[in-house]
Amino acid sequence: MSDAGRLNALRALMAKDSVKALLVTHLPDVRWLCGFTGSNAALAVTPKNAVLFTDGRYTTQARQETRGARVAIAKKSALKEACALLEQMAKRASYDPGHTTVADLAMMRSAVSAKVRRSFFVALQRPLVGELRMIKDAGELRLMEKAAAIGDKVFSALLSHIESGVAETEIAATLEFFARSMGAEGMSFDTIVASGERSALPHGKASARKTPRNGFITLDFGVILNGYCSDMTRTVCVGKLSRQERAAYEAVLEAQQAGVAAVKPGATCGEVDEAARSVLRKARLAKYFTHSTGHGVGLEIHEAPLLAAGKKLELKPGMVVTVEPGVYLAGKFGIRIEDMVAVTQRGNKVLTNSTKALIEL
Amino acid sequence: MSDAGRLNALRALMAKDSVKALLVTHLPDVRWLCGFTGSNAALAVTPKNAVLFTDGRYTTQARQETRGARVAIAKKSALKEACALLEQMAKRASYDPGHTTVADLAMMRSAVSAKVRRSFFVALQRPLVGELRMIKDAGELRLMEKAAAIGDKVFSALLSHIESGVAETEIAATLEFFARSMGAEGMSFDTIVASGERSALPHGKASARKTPRNGFITLDFGVILNGYCSDMTRTVCVGKLSRQERAAYEAVLEAQQAGVAAVKPGATCGEVDEAARSVLRKARLAKYFTHSTGHGVGLEIHEAPLLAAGKKLELKPGMVVTVEPGVYLAGKFGIRIEDMVAVTQRGNKVLTNSTKALIEL
Repeated sequence: MSDAGRLNALRALMAKDSVKALLVTHLPDVRWLCGFTGSNAALAVTPKNAVLFTDGRYTTQARQETRGARVAIAKKSALKEACALLEQMAKRASYDPGHTTVADLAMMRSAVSAKVRRSFFVALQRPLVGELRMIKDAGELRLMEKAAAIGDKVFSALLSHIESGVAETEIAATLEFFARSMGAEGMSFDTIVASGERSALPHGKASARKTPRNGFITLDFGVILNGYCSDMTRTVCVGKLSRQERAAYEAVLEAQQAGVAAVKPGATCGEVDEAARSVLRKARLAKYFTHSTGHGVGLEIHEAPLLAAGKKLELKPGMVVTVEPGVYLAGKFGIRIEDMVAVTQRGNKVLTNSTKALIEL
Repeated sequence: MSDAGRLNALRALMAKDSVKALLVTHLPDVRWLCGFTGSNAALAVTPKNAVLFTDGRYTTQARQETRGARVAIAKKSALKEACALLEQMAKRASYDPGHTTVADLAMMRSAVSAKVRRSFFVALQRPLVGELRMIKDAGELRLMEKAAAIGDKVFSALLSHIESGVAETEIAATLEFFARSMGAEGMSFDTIVASGERSALPHGKASARKTPRNGFITLDFGVILNGYCSDMTRTVCVGKLSRQERAAYEAVLEAQQAGVAAVKPGATCGEVDEAARSVLRKARLAKYFTHSTGHGVGLEIHEAPLLAAGKKLELKPGMVVTVEPGVYLAGKFGIRIEDMVAVTQRGNKVLTNSTKALIEL
């Protein structure tokens, strides 16, 4: 979808919800709507106009990047100048309460005249831009497929650098160097390299700890390409594994495959979660699966929808989600396997294609 | 300061401002107060108690890391369970409006009983934890000095890899590999490598563009060490420079040195800004200096105080700020030079020690 297309898709939703004017301040939303990637932005959108406010650091960049909106360089506060303009253009303006702090709302109110101060700003009932962003267009899907493919190449190149006795940070350094060398703009999040009993930490960022003689190493990482994130996890092993560890790996793999198989148009997010979780329940490992099964991914590493127990939202073609069940036995070991999966017209397409069979290094 | 010391320092400020109970949700604040580094946390603080709420992903990690607070693993929402406990412990609870979204506030209110819903939560008048965090203790200063020293080593090692015709992303890849290899946990922000006319973009993240035959290359980067960020910028050049470019470099360097010299206890943030800005004004370059002179740095890459025109806040020993004037001539070139500077009892200590003389590669 072109940027004008995106702004118009937003305007259609605004009309449906009787939103006369909208203030967009969440930076990934701004970027998605008009292309501007700077760190300070307030986008005022009405049925006929769109004006992007930023500051003097971005004078050149904003003009280069922004499409579908007029650029205004704020003298003092981009946020307040956007609000002042909105007051001229509409009787009310909506904002996203999930991405507006209480302090920002006070500042927004201070920028409009006293007589409308209490009533001018109205919280959106649903995150309109966030809902649009859930559905990726063909261009976004191509980028995310490319980002995921870089992830696969990084993982493949990394394997020969993993063995017992290597610092987790060294593995992360090599991983990130490969990612950058293969064209990544950066990493989607702090790279997780969690080895031995640290693999039982679902969010074990790479530490100075050396990989063990025997045990698992969980690698969870993503690259950024033109702003779009990839996300994948593989758990490999060094040395010998216990029977319990092998059985747990097989169970997580089966759960992950069941989760992926459940991704299709019309399935609810809760059904995908349950597909993965029920496999671990049968293996008596469900109590060690302490997080939700997955999340949407795009310009943000975590975005809607959330694949968690009971979530009723239905998957639609164009959504891209992770499927990442794991088990974490404190003080012993942990395993997580994660793919990035696009919902298609008839089912799904897995974007991360590294093998999920246990790799023993 | 120990973590108990930090919580008690917070309690002293709370008593001064008649804050009976405080909900802390900004993650760097939580980390600073009790050591927990996870991505989901709500810390309830009263004069006698402190309870950290997080979720099941962090059961092990929270127990390993948290000091001075009891750990509670929330069944559903860490935020709501923290609020429910606060209602049992106090008649009112304060929160930081600068780090609480309108949606979070609604969720917080929904977690307390209907009869107190409208009155229970009170916005802090000033960001108590943020104010405490401005002053770094000896341990923090040691870490930040170490992080800055890694930045210097990275810069020095990188120089032999910079020449005409190298992609900016390749320079960033090498830079980040060196940083990781030298012990960094990650980068403080997306590495800026902006060459040729892209150096006129103050926030020009590394792109596929190759370095020019003649011109500037601005490198702005930072590393993270035990959570603490470093931040430095140097502008080097390749090939030949015009007279105008050389003169501008000298002016920025002089402005940066004047800014650093102005950093001392009792100086206001606005005075440091003016010290740098006035040099560029004399050189008729002030209109190209489109941002503030610097910012505080610590667990966050941008934190209080802000060194900008007119800011009355006085510098105090233990603050760590950047001093980073720059000029940006759209379509032509840009230059920025940045140090990280700690305020000492009698003046300041520059933590980044790479040469600022023009390096011609």
